[in-house]
Amino acid sequence: MLAFALLGAGRIGRLHAANIAAHPNARLAAVADAVPAAAEEVAARHGARTASVEDALASAEVDAVLIATSTDTHAPLIEAAAAAGKAILCEKPIDLDIARATAAVRAARAAGVALAVGFNRRFDASFASLKARLDAGAIGAPEIVAIASRDPAPPPLSYVEVSGGLFRDMMIHDLDMARWLLGEEPVEVHAMGSALVDPAIAAAGDVDTAVVTLRTASGRLAQISNSRRAAYGYDQRIEVHGSGGMLRAENLRPTTVELATADGFVRDPVLHFFLERYGPAYRAELDAFVTAVAAGSPPAPTGEDGLAALRLADAAQASLASRAPVSLADRTDGR
Amino acid sequence: MLAFALLGAGRIGRLHAANIAAHPNARLAAVADAVPAAAEEVAARHGARTASVEDALASAEVDAVLIATSTDTHAPLIEAAAAAGKAILCEKPIDLDIARATAAVRAARAAGVALAVGFNRRFDASFASLKARLDAGAIGAPEIVAIASRDPAPPPLSYVEVSGGLFRDMMIHDLDMARWLLGEEPVEVHAMGSALVDPAIAAAGDVDTAVVTLRTASGRLAQISNSRRAAYGYDQRIEVHGSGGMLRAENLRPTTVELATADGFVRDPVLHFFLERYGPAYRAELDAFVTAVAAGSPPAPTGEDGLAALRLADAAQASLASRAPVSLADRTDGR
Amino acid sequence: MLAFALLGAGRIGRLHAANIAAHPNARLAAVADAVPAAAEEVAARHGARTASVEDALASAEVDAVLIATSTDTHAPLIEAAAAAGKAILCEKPIDLDIARATAAVRAARAAGVALAVGFNRRFDASFASLKARLDAGAIGAPEIVAIASRDPAPPPLSYVEVSGGLFRDMMIHDLDMARWLLGEEPVEVHAMGSALVDPAIAAAGDVDTAVVTLRTASGRLAQISNSRRAAYGYDQRIEVHGSGGMLRAENLRPTTVELATADGFVRDPVLHFFLERYGPAYRAELDAFVTAVAAGSPPAPTGEDGLAALRLADAAQASLASRAPVSLADRTDGR
Amino acid sequence: MLAFALLGAGRIGRLHAANIAAHPNARLAAVADAVPAAAEEVAARHGARTASVEDALASAEVDAVLIATSTDTHAPLIEAAAAAGKAILCEKPIDLDIARATAAVRAARAAGVALAVGFNRRFDASFASLKARLDAGAIGAPEIVAIASRDPAPPPLSYVEVSGGLFRDMMIHDLDMARWLLGEEPVEVHAMGSALVDPAIAAAGDVDTAVVTLRTASGRLAQISNSRRAAYGYDQRIEVHGSGGMLRAENLRPTTVELATADGFVRDPVLHFFLERYGPAYRAELDAFVTAVAAGSPPAPTGEDGLAALRLADAAQASLASRAPVSLADRTDGR
Repeated sequence: MLAFALLGAGRIGRLHAANIAAHPNARLAAVADAVPAAAEEVAARHGARTASVEDALASAEVDAVLIATSTDTHAPLIEAAAAAGKAILCEKPIDLDIARATAAVRAARAAGVALAVGFNRRFDASFASLKARLDAGAIGAPEIVAIASRDPAPPPLSYVEVSGGLFRDMMIHDLDMARWLLGEEPVEVHAMGSALVDPAIAAAGDVDTAVVTLRTASGRLAQISNSRRAAYGYDQRIEVHGSGGMLRAENLRPTTVELATADGFVRDPVLHFFLERYGPAYRAELDAFVTAVAAGSPPAPTGEDGLAALRLADAAQASLASRAPVSLADRTDGR
Repeated sequence: MLAFALLGAGRIGRLHAANIAAHPNARLAAVADAVPAAAEEVAARHGARTASVEDALASAEVDAVLIATSTDTHAPLIEAAAAAGKAILCEKPIDLDIARATAAVRAARAAGVALAVGFNRRFDASFASLKARLDAGAIGAPEIVAIASRDPAPPPLSYVEVSGGLFRDMMIHDLDMARWLLGEEPVEVHAMGSALVDPAIAAAGDVDTAVVTLRTASGRLAQISNSRRAAYGYDQRIEVHGSGGMLRAENLRPTTVELATADGFVRDPVLHFFLERYGPAYRAELDAFVTAVAAGSPPAPTGEDGLAALRLADAAQASLASRAPVSLADRTDGR
Repeated sequence: MLAFALLGAGRIGRLHAANIAAHPNARLAAVADAVPAAAEEVAARHGARTASVEDALASAEVDAVLIATSTDTHAPLIEAAAAAGKAILCEKPIDLDIARATAAVRAARAAGVALAVGFNRRFDASFASLKARLDAGAIGAPEIVAIASRDPAPPPLSYVEVSGGLFRDMMIHDLDMARWLLGEEPVEVHAMGSALVDPAIAAAGDVDTAVVTLRTASGRLAQISNSRRAAYGYDQRIEVHGSGGMLRAENLRPTTVELATADGFVRDPVLHFFLERYGPAYRAELDAFVTAVAAGSPPAPTGEDGLAALRLADAAQASLASRAPVSLADRTDGR
Repeated sequence: MLAFALLGAGRIGRLHAANIAAHPNARLAAVADAVPAAAEEVAARHGARTASVEDALASAEVDAVLIATSTDTHAPLIEAAAAAGKAILCEKPIDLDIARATAAVRAARAAGVALAVGFNRRFDASFASLKARLDAGAIGAPEIVAIASRDPAPPPLSYVEVSGGLFRDMMIHDLDMARWLLGEEPVEVHAMGSALVDPAIAAAGDVDTAVVTLRTASGRLAQISNSRRAAYGYDQRIEVHGSGGMLRAENLRPTTVELATADGFVRDPVLHFFLERYGPAYRAELDAFVTAVAAGSPPAPTGEDGLAALRLADAAQASLASRAPVSLADRTDGR
């Protein structure tokens, strides 16, 4: 039974709290949040106690922390939890600054604590099944990976302004998926982007529509397509083309109902957003973490995975600014 | 090069004329129609001559007749063509009266001429592929056949009145498909029907909505569903369930375009009616006939297939009237 | 907070126990089972106590019972729970004997307790959405309802022998769905059936493959297709045709992954069986019951729904035996 | 009745010959080919005469030429046909060299003859319908266009060597589609490519796997994905994302048959290659040309469309070589 302290009792923290409480081999011991009422509500719902971060980390009762606070606190909390010897499951990204993120990952590694980063999409049943079949050789070696990822609507401008930009905030998930599916490290990144959804996003220095191309040393290619808007729901699709064929995973719908009239055949919009689409994935992510920690094996995605995705996001951002591809070869060699 | 006389230059006759003209091993020699202008137009379009039925059948130039006249003339024309030694491709049904139809089929058999009945659906690429896979054992022996068949809109009441009723006019195609797919003769037929589309159809003594169940001696079952109305187009689908799984063939659409908006994902209505859906099937039907006649082998579906389907339609009509299943075992034995 | 006693801690009982424990407005108070160890395991898992049926029903702490015992005990347990004033959610069927089932329903009605029957399919998200759109007029009045329902594999022969037969055991769900979707009571039932899956099923006096047709007084029709075997998983599909078009609900799959190779495009088999397919439906069923009881409104499907479906199953069984349709008009009038 | 001279009686020429012969308002007057037997066969099949190119162009009987010769002869034949005052339908590309192609287009323009380039995909029923709905505002302004295009297998190496490379030979179709769908001229092109299918293609200085990104001045984006290999058939798909949703067109299959077994649900591979997929599109292309010429209106896609697509292909080739995006703004201004 792995006892968790939850750090951060916002929307995503509450989701994790419920998953911890429902997991047969995990329990929620403590909840910390800067807003005491938030922590209290979550703690009460799941029979946990509230605590300050310091108390939670100092508690011998706590085996692991789940970090679901705002992004700027992730790195210091990882370091503090590492110092306290706790296993760590941290929401992505580790930090918006690669140096800061690297320091946090190194701290965890140095302390010998388990560190996993919350790239929840790896645990989506369809994506995980696609990956397993790819690894089993269903289509031979991958040649082109295509990832479509669209949010239903842009976040508030206040969020955009502190998000680190579309590449670090949103596409970082797709960059992780691309690495995972390519089976090789990208060595070159090219990005193009526009603000077509909302001019205020452009005014904030960001884009809301972007496409990125990746290349690995052996010539495997990936295409990512992102938009902050999709009228028909949360668009989350993957295609992998290999020498022997294609694997693809489509969107999910709330029902299978189809209405046929003189106007055509109509199916539901796809699941609205990440809470709907990735609810089961968050549970599977927790389960993988709990299982790995219990077995003493390193949980995945690792801190290094988190850094690698951030490095790709940085490269995409740089490519957008410079209007030129960015080479990652040296940095990859240097890791 | 098989030279055809086309008997009947109406809508379906014109379709056959164009297919004959385009076939590499067939040509249209003569066209007969009670309306001279209709025959002239078709003949002119395809470089054929007009002729009376008598002249066409007497002509040494003519190898085969394609009978596309009104139903009540099919049987005498089959007999006349048989007497003239011409190969015969006759639109369904042979006749609305089983005795009259039987006499015509016997006449063709006695004369030793080839006779095929225009059950065009057997030549639909999807249905033919389904049948081929079934025969190849893809799902083992068939257990349940399910056929859905809906016209986009009811025919004119004047047509309904002389049609012989839904079972002989419309469902006869599905009854042929059921026999073909079951691989065994039905020995029991049960029908239920209603006039839900138009009360005038009830007033004319017919139904517009009907379901029929068939059973073979070994216990294989078939379900047929018919309606004279389908808002979304011409509904033509088949499912066959066997010990090893299912084979199904879906409807066809004019395009593959899908529109996704906040209202959902919309695809086209299905192809509108038989001319759209079965255009290629009519060509394949002609090709099969031409090829069989050229090879001296009997073309299919045979006259006996036409009689068997009509016998099932009669049984369905009788079941509807009597509100009881009708047994076909004796009649089947007696063939 | 509705406190439940669970009667029956077998496979389906354990499912209900977990759903009760997870429901925000319900809790599991007591568990009774003829096998004490089974009751103890379930009780321990969810913090409940074990009890005899008598104790559970006598307990003031218990508000409601969930009956998940073997079928032959349902009726007496309904009567005992009614006498104890408990709200009742009973797994289907109420009883295999219509007279016995009717007595139990009358007992509940007389006692004024809430009684719901576990026709879980009404709570499937896709079927419920289809029904809601039908009721909202999306396709006009229903004309033909088509229900396909196939189990992945036949149950043990020992189960078949006490099951009451395919119609009462398996098709009763589909008969309930047909009533629900037709919006009118069937007045005529016709059945055909065979034992094509296993001759031992025939030897036990049952069929494993069956088709049933229903007709309502106004002429609406329904077709049901059942098999005890489907190689590709648990086949659960519905189509409703109305004057304005069609509504249909397809099967569900574990993932959306599609593999495309030279052999074609392959998707997953459909969800394996009822635990996989209807897991969320069981939760929704419980939620509807808890909500209705809390509101003091009658929960659905009602005991009368249970009787009506059983009456249709009896009629189907009689039709199979007599090889004739069975009229329900009088019995319907007499209710 | 538009009288055509067919220049080039190879595989694609024979396809065009059959389409001309079958068109109600066109006829095949003459056929020229460097191989006399090839010309004779096509001429004989369709009742045309053979001719030298010179004779065909000099003939008063000939209204239009269809150029289906090898690529290196397209430009001189356009110029000769323009000088002879014939309407011209030329297979793509006009020429592999932009200057040479430009000269040919200018010659046609100066002579005032109609010139259309054979970008057949614009006439595919699904793509044309998608475009019509896009133009009708179904999803608002386009933001991202995604085009997937894969051949079933690489061409012979001898063809690769003279093809002008993947971008000019294969992707030129997709670049035309991208321009057509974006509704704006691309001003920036970025390409990445690899030889993953066959190292001999790399040895020949070409790639067989490539992805290209386009950007227009207003920030609309396009992604193209090409491979010379697709195990599952000829992959031809389009997606357009706009402010109001998405339009997409999927691949086509020979049948709608689906086989469901314990291994899953299998559908056919997609149509094998361009002759299967675009057969109807070639007919629609011819029809549009004949109709436009008859009406005296300019046929599309125009010679300028041909040049614009070639310019994009050149830019993609340059980007691949330089590993940098290529700006087209100046060149676009200069047209």
